[in-house]
Amino acid sequence: MNRRTILMGMTAASALLAAGPAFAQTNGPLEVSSPGGVLSVRLSFGEANIQKGIPTYEVRRFGRPVVSPSKLGFRFADAPLLAPDMEVTGVERRSVDNTWEQPWGEKRFIRNHFNELAVTLTETTALKRRMKVVFRVYDDGIGLRYELPDQANLKDVLITEELTEFRFAEDATAWWIPARQPNRYEYNYNTTPLNDVFMAHTPVTMRTEDGLHISIHEAALVDYAAMVLRRTGKHAFQADLTPWSDGIRVRAKTPFVTPWRTLQIADTAGGLITSYLILNLNEPNALGDVSWVEPGKYVGVWWEMHLGTGSWGSGPKHSANTANVKRYIDFAAKHGFKGVLVEGWNVGWDGDWYRDGGDAFLFAQAYPDFDLPELARYGQARGVRLIGHHETAGNVTRYESQLAAALDLYEKHGVRAVKTGYVADAGQIQRVDEKGVVRREYHDGQFMARHHLHVVKEAAKRKISINPHEPIKDTGLRRTYPNWIAREGARGQEYNAWGNPGNPPEHAAILPFTRMLGGPMDYTPGVFDLLNTKRENRDTRVETTLAKELALYVILYSPIQMACDLPEHYEARMAPFQFIKDVVTDWEDTIVLNAEIGDYVTIARKARKNADWFLGALTDETGRMLSVDLGFLDANQTYKAQIYRDGPKADFTSDPYDMEILEGLVTSQTRLALRLAAGGGQAIRFTPASAADRRKLKSI
Amino acid sequence: MNRRTILMGMTAASALLAAGPAFAQTNGPLEVSSPGGVLSVRLSFGEANIQKGIPTYEVRRFGRPVVSPSKLGFRFADAPLLAPDMEVTGVERRSVDNTWEQPWGEKRFIRNHFNELAVTLTETTALKRRMKVVFRVYDDGIGLRYELPDQANLKDVLITEELTEFRFAEDATAWWIPARQPNRYEYNYNTTPLNDVFMAHTPVTMRTEDGLHISIHEAALVDYAAMVLRRTGKHAFQADLTPWSDGIRVRAKTPFVTPWRTLQIADTAGGLITSYLILNLNEPNALGDVSWVEPGKYVGVWWEMHLGTGSWGSGPKHSANTANVKRYIDFAAKHGFKGVLVEGWNVGWDGDWYRDGGDAFLFAQAYPDFDLPELARYGQARGVRLIGHHETAGNVTRYESQLAAALDLYEKHGVRAVKTGYVADAGQIQRVDEKGVVRREYHDGQFMARHHLHVVKEAAKRKISINPHEPIKDTGLRRTYPNWIAREGARGQEYNAWGNPGNPPEHAAILPFTRMLGGPMDYTPGVFDLLNTKRENRDTRVETTLAKELALYVILYSPIQMACDLPEHYEARMAPFQFIKDVVTDWEDTIVLNAEIGDYVTIARKARKNADWFLGALTDETGRMLSVDLGFLDANQTYKAQIYRDGPKADFTSDPYDMEILEGLVTSQTRLALRLAAGGGQAIRFTPASAADRRKLKSI
Repeated sequence: MNRRTILMGMTAASALLAAGPAFAQTNGPLEVSSPGGVLSVRLSFGEANIQKGIPTYEVRRFGRPVVSPSKLGFRFADAPLLAPDMEVTGVERRSVDNTWEQPWGEKRFIRNHFNELAVTLTETTALKRRMKVVFRVYDDGIGLRYELPDQANLKDVLITEELTEFRFAEDATAWWIPARQPNRYEYNYNTTPLNDVFMAHTPVTMRTEDGLHISIHEAALVDYAAMVLRRTGKHAFQADLTPWSDGIRVRAKTPFVTPWRTLQIADTAGGLITSYLILNLNEPNALGDVSWVEPGKYVGVWWEMHLGTGSWGSGPKHSANTANVKRYIDFAAKHGFKGVLVEGWNVGWDGDWYRDGGDAFLFAQAYPDFDLPELARYGQARGVRLIGHHETAGNVTRYESQLAAALDLYEKHGVRAVKTGYVADAGQIQRVDEKGVVRREYHDGQFMARHHLHVVKEAAKRKISINPHEPIKDTGLRRTYPNWIAREGARGQEYNAWGNPGNPPEHAAILPFTRMLGGPMDYTPGVFDLLNTKRENRDTRVETTLAKELALYVILYSPIQMACDLPEHYEARMAPFQFIKDVVTDWEDTIVLNAEIGDYVTIARKARKNADWFLGALTDETGRMLSVDLGFLDANQTYKAQIYRDGPKADFTSDPYDMEILEGLVTSQTRLALRLAAGGGQAIRFTPASAADRRKLKSI
Repeated sequence: MNRRTILMGMTAASALLAAGPAFAQTNGPLEVSSPGGVLSVRLSFGEANIQKGIPTYEVRRFGRPVVSPSKLGFRFADAPLLAPDMEVTGVERRSVDNTWEQPWGEKRFIRNHFNELAVTLTETTALKRRMKVVFRVYDDGIGLRYELPDQANLKDVLITEELTEFRFAEDATAWWIPARQPNRYEYNYNTTPLNDVFMAHTPVTMRTEDGLHISIHEAALVDYAAMVLRRTGKHAFQADLTPWSDGIRVRAKTPFVTPWRTLQIADTAGGLITSYLILNLNEPNALGDVSWVEPGKYVGVWWEMHLGTGSWGSGPKHSANTANVKRYIDFAAKHGFKGVLVEGWNVGWDGDWYRDGGDAFLFAQAYPDFDLPELARYGQARGVRLIGHHETAGNVTRYESQLAAALDLYEKHGVRAVKTGYVADAGQIQRVDEKGVVRREYHDGQFMARHHLHVVKEAAKRKISINPHEPIKDTGLRRTYPNWIAREGARGQEYNAWGNPGNPPEHAAILPFTRMLGGPMDYTPGVFDLLNTKRENRDTRVETTLAKELALYVILYSPIQMACDLPEHYEARMAPFQFIKDVVTDWEDTIVLNAEIGDYVTIARKARKNADWFLGALTDETGRMLSVDLGFLDANQTYKAQIYRDGPKADFTSDPYDMEILEGLVTSQTRLALRLAAGGGQAIRFTPASAADRRKLKSI
C-alpha cells in the first residue's frame, strides 16, 4: 500500500461553483472555510474601529483569531484611494481538489485542495471603480490577491501604496531579516518578538506562545513589486511594495492581478515545510516539455576565488583558464558530477568591476586563456557540461542588451544552465531609461521582477536553466517556469570563506523554515577544509562539524547542489565525500521527522529515480539526542544504512572533523537515536540491502 | 525484526568497575560521562565563589553547562555542618548495562544503562565524618544521592537542612505547582519563567530557550522527607525537605541512603516521557510473585457523590447501598469492567468528617445498608471485584491502628485493591505521638513516607494493591513494590464536577510531562455528561470535547483506569463508550509521536496481551492539525483503525459532543492527519484486520 497523506476532516464538500452576476448589494460578512474546517477567512465592513466602507478580512483557525480584521485596498498616484465606500456587488465560490505532478522537486505529486471565495467590490461613489478580492483557503494556509478588471474608470494604474494589512492576533517569536538594507537578503536571521519587527523581507516566520507556526510570504510575483512587511502597530503590519526609482510602486494596466499574499499556518515547524501552498498558488507549467531541465550535482571554479588562491580577473591567478577548468572537468567526470560552474571566464573582471558597476562585462567574450569551445567539447566527451556565469554587477540594461547573444553562445556550446549575478547594494541596480539616464532600482522592485522573468523566458527558448544570485525572492514561479531552477537570496556558503564570522550554527536550522519556504536555494554546501587553511587571512571558519556539512545536502533542498570546495580537499577525505557522490537532488517525497526553528531539524527524502532514501539531521550550537522512527521506509524491504555521524569528541568549536562512518541493516521498524554534537549533524543513505549486505552486515 | 531503540554513541565502554580503598588524597575534579557521551557530571572544589572545601557538582550536556557548580551537604540539629573542609578519600566507578522487565507498566522491557561515580568525602577536621556522593549518569539524565556509612562520629542523625543545590545554567519556561500550600498537589500548573518559581513541588519541568527539556524530581523516596524546590537566586534552587512538626526534616541512623535527586534531560518533550530514569534508579521488585496485581478498568460509586445526586454519609441519598452497588456490578459485568469502587460504604461519614479529622471512621465496619459479604459474592460470581476505600481524613494514627483488621476484612472478601484517602489540608495530617499528643504533619514529610510504605507492605502480605489519593508524590517505588499501583497527587477529574471552573484544557497536556514523569495517576477519566446536568449548581463543566475524554485513556497512563461517570450516561452514548470498553491498561511499549508541553501531545501504546495498538491525541484550548506516521505498526499486518474524533463543529466551548466514529484499513505505511478541535482530541484503536474487515472496509 503506497504511502499518502490523507486529510481527515469534513465529509461534505462545499458547493462546487457559483458564479454570481451583480449580487444583491449587501455588506454583510462573507466567509469561506478550508475543506477540512481548519481555517476560515471572513470579509466584512466596519470591523473594530476601521472606517465604514473599508473592507477588511480576518483569518481564524479552529474558530480562534489568527489575523484580526485587517484592511484591503490601494492608493494611486493620480486617482482616489481604492477602497473606502465599497460594497459587495459579486460573489463567486468554487472548490478544487486535484493533484498535479512536478517535473522536478522535493515531492513529485502535490495535492491542490482549496475552497475559494472571490468577492467583487465596487465603489458606491461616482467612479464606480471595482476590484475583486480572491481568498483561496487551504487547510494549511491561505492566499489572497486582488484582480483589477478592465473598466472605464481604471485603465492605467500607478500604485503608490498597497493598503493590505496583516494584523496578527497576538505577539509571537519571529525569525526575520531586515528589508531595504544594503546587503539585500544576505543577513543572519533575527530571532525576536514579532513586536520588534519593523521592516522585514518575506518569508517572515513566527511561532505564537501557543505553538502555532505562521509564515507570511507571497506567491507568483509577476510584473509587480515585491512586498516587504512594514510595522504599523502591535504585531500589525502593512504590505510595503518596493518602489521604482521615481517612487511609484507598481505600474500596471487593467486587467491585471496582484501576486498572492500568503500565510502558511501549521501546528509544527515541519508542517510549514510540507505545506506546498506557494507552489499551489502559482500557475501551472507554461513551458511544456522540460525534460532538458536536469537536476544534478556540480563542482566549480569558484571557491578558490573566495579563498583568494585564485581570481576572477585575468593575470597569474586567473582561475578560469583552460587547464584549470579541465582539471575540474576531470574531477567531475571521475566522481559523477554533471556540471562544472566557471566564474571569471568572460571579459570584464579586471579593474574595479564592482565599483564601476559592471560596465566592462562582455557576456559573449571569453578571456583569451579560456577556450570555451574546447572546454565544452572536453566536458561533453566526459559527460560533463559547463555551467555558465553572467555576473552583471547590477548593470541590468547592459546585460539585457547582450542577453540574446550571450545565451546563443551558451546554447551553441551545450551549456544548459547559467548562474547569474547581481552584485550591487540594494537600490543600486542600474537601469538606463528611455532618455539614456541611469536610474537606480531595487533588486526586488517591479523592474527586476520583469527582468528576471525575461531572462528565464529567453533562456527557456534555448533550453537553458537559470540560477540567479543576488536575485529577487522566490515566490514559486518554478512551477510556471521549471527552468528557474534555484537562486541564492540569503546568506550562503561564501560568507563562510570571509564573513568574519561565517554563518552561525543556527543559520541552517532557520533557513528551511524561512527563506526556503519560497523555494530551493543554491546554498552551495560541501566545504571540507572547515578552517579555510588556504586563506591568507584566517579570520573565518565554517562553524560546523563535517557530518553536519553532509547533512546540508538533504536539509537544504535544491535541484542543483554544488560540491563547492577544491578537489584536493575532497581527495584528502574520500570517505565522507562518498555521501556527496551518492546523494541525489530530485525527490519523490519529503518528510520532516522533527524540527524546532533555529534549534534542530531532521528531514528524510525519497529518491525519485530509485529506491533510496536519504536522511539529514542538524542542530545549532547545542548538541542534541533525537529519536527517529524509520517507518517511512518500505515495509517490504531491508535496507543498508550508510551512516555519517559526529564522533564522540566532535564539537564545532574544538573538533569539527571527528566523525564516524558505519553501515548496518535497518527496516521500517527500526528506531534510531541520533546523537548530534554541538554544531553537528548526521547524514544517512538508505539503500536496499543486497544479499551480500544481508550476509555481511549487522542489524542496527 | 523487532523494534528496539538503540543508542548510537560511543563505541568504547568505560572501565567496568574500580573499587578504591583510601584513595590518594586529592581535590582535583572528578568526572563521569554517560555511556553515549551525552551528559557528564563533575565533582570539584572551590568552584566559582563557593568556599573552598565545599564540594560542588555540575552537569554538562555535549560539553555545555546545564547545571552550574552547585553545593552538596547537610546541616544537622546537633552536629556541625557536613560539608566544608572535605576531601576526596575514595573513588569508585562502575558501569551497568542490563534490561529488566516490569510486571506491568507503560513499557515491558526497560534498559538500564549508566556510568556511575561514587566519591567518598571525608572531613579534614577532627570528627573526620564521611559521606559518599553517588552520581549515576545516563544518556537521558542523572541521579545523585548521598550514602552516609556507619561511622564513629555519625550515628543518630537529625537533618535540619539538606544543602543540595540546583543552579541551572540559564533561565527557562517552567511548568510547576506551588509547594506547602493548603491544597497539597492539587493546583493548576503555572507556566512562568524559571526565575519566577519560588517554592515548588517536583517534578518541575522546564524548557530552555534553546529547546532543552529538563525535569527535576527524586527517585526512591524511602524513610526520608520529600524534597521541595526552594529558590535561592536566579534560576537557582535548593532542596528543601518537608519538615516534621517539630522542625526536624529527617531522622536517620547511619548507615542510610537518601533518595536520588534526579534530572531527566531531553531535546524533546516526548523524550522526557520515554526516559525511564526514575524507575531505573529504584530498587528491583522486592515482593516476588506479583501476579495478583492486575491492571484493569473499573467503575465506581463515586461520581454521583461529587455531582451531589448521592452521598457518602448515611441517609436517603446514601450511595453505597447494596442495591445501588449491585446495579454498578451488573453494569461492570455487562461491559467487561473488573472492579467496582465503592466510597461511603463504612461508618464514619456522617457529621463533619472532614472538620472532625476523620475521628469517626471505622475501617472494618460497614453501614447497615451495605452488605459487604453479599456484594463480594455477587460481584465475583460475575467476574467483578469490589475495590475498597479507606478515607482517613488525614487521621493516620487512627488508620494505622485499624489497618490490619481492615485489610484482613478486605482479603477475606476478595478485595484485591484499595483506594486510600488523606483529605486534609497540607500540614494537617494527624499523628499521635508516644505521649498521646496529636501532632500535625505534612502529607509529604518523613512520617508519611514511612506510613505509605507501611500500608503498601501490609497490603502486599494480603495480596492487595494500594491506590492513595491525597498521597505523597510518586518517586518510582512501584518498581520495588509493584502493588503500589497508582495514586492521585495532582488535580484530577473531581475538579470537573465542582471546581468552578474545572481543570483548564491545557491541564491534560501538562500532566504527562510533569506529575506523571513520577509515575501513573488515577485521574479517573471518562465523564460523558460534560455539562454536569445532574448537578444542582451548574457552575462547572468538563472543559473538553468528548473525543478528547476518550484520548485520556491512552495519554494519561495508569494500570487502573476508571470509567468514572454514572452508568446511565454511558448507556446514552454507547458508540463512544465502545472505545473505553476496548482500551487496555497494560502496555508492551509507548511512543510519543509529537508533543509540546501545555499545547498538545500524541501517544501510541502497544497492548501487552494482544496485537492491538492504541493512539491518543489531545490539545489545549487551541485546535490543531497534526500529522502522524503509523510506522510503529507491525509492517506485516493490515489493521482496522477504529477512529473516534472531533466532528467538524466540535469546540469545547460551544459543541463538545460533535464527534465522528469511523473505521478503515491502515498499515505501517499510512500517514494520518489528525484534526483536533479547540479543547479536543482523538482516540484510535488499531486491531488486526480480519478477512471480513479487509473485504468490507476501505483503506484510509
